[in-house]
Amino acid sequence: MRSKGFEGMTCSMASVMGALGDRWGALIVRDLYLGLTRYDDLQRSTSVTNATLSDRLKALEQNGLIERRRYQSRPDRYEYVLTEKGRDIGLVLLAMVQVGDKWNLNDLDGPPLRFFDARSGHRVQLALVDAQTGKPIDPAHISVEAGPGADDLTKWRVARRAISNPGTLRS
Amino acid sequence: MRSKGFEGMTCSMASVMGALGDRWGALIVRDLYLGLTRYDDLQRSTSVTNATLSDRLKALEQNGLIERRRYQSRPDRYEYVLTEKGRDIGLVLLAMVQVGDKWNLNDLDGPPLRFFDARSGHRVQLALVDAQTGKPIDPAHISVEAGPGADDLTKWRVARRAISNPGTLRS
Repeated sequence: MRSKGFEGMTCSMASVMGALGDRWGALIVRDLYLGLTRYDDLQRSTSVTNATLSDRLKALEQNGLIERRRYQSRPDRYEYVLTEKGRDIGLVLLAMVQVGDKWNLNDLDGPPLRFFDARSGHRVQLALVDAQTGKPIDPAHISVEAGPGADDLTKWRVARRAISNPGTLRS
Repeated sequence: MRSKGFEGMTCSMASVMGALGDRWGALIVRDLYLGLTRYDDLQRSTSVTNATLSDRLKALEQNGLIERRRYQSRPDRYEYVLTEKGRDIGLVLLAMVQVGDKWNLNDLDGPPLRFFDARSGHRVQLALVDAQTGKPIDPAHISVEAGPGADDLTKWRVARRAISNPGTLRS
């Protein structure tokens, strides 16, 4: 999707959504991210029809998010796992979970799921870190510049924000 | 949105999307995240009509994502800034940008935007970290458990994944 007004952040957003396909695709990626692998489990978890599940699994495979692997012969049986790309997109879902839980957007009694480090038992969270050192970064010091894929409007945005808001992002 | 099959991860996803409203809402949050603040700038950046922009700004304010602040009197003029909740949702957009750029989902010549630490000049990225120590975590060691808001199906998923995939998430 490269239509006017959707470049930059929202173009990425539209493309991530496009790779998932729809809510059913997102549900499947969620389940695979959680560790489910079998067709029957996916169906029980998502409550979709066979036709929809088969269709979305094919679409996710075509989009490079999942792989189908044979785990048994005669009769052949398959399981589904996320590719690296699929796991990266799972990270976006995790970011949504984190935000949804923090602000209790679901109006629940608490988080439905808790992610933790199996070695330390500590909770895990998504955070902005220095890409070189891995150290956490104070969001007040994050800045942005136009990259090689920036169009004129993106360049204008970056220049404009530097005027109204010099130095750092309001983040 | 709490309908069957959308609890857990995708419920968070639906609720984050719901808070943004639609693509126009997402575009506005993106622009505010980048540091634009003025109505005229938002309109130029998003190319939406006045009616749509005004409507979405009101909706985002009602959803607690943005604040309207007067920066001039006689005539009164206002600027728009993200709340903490809005910035957190901006983080989800950033996760999408990161994934979209890494896999070049937009088919561009490079990333449209580069985020960096204004002090060190280093690039920033979203990563999974230990919530207590802030240290990066090997995704291979991430595990999940049902939280207080888990319904029966979520509990089943967590139990089921532990059978097919003991110890850690495939992430």
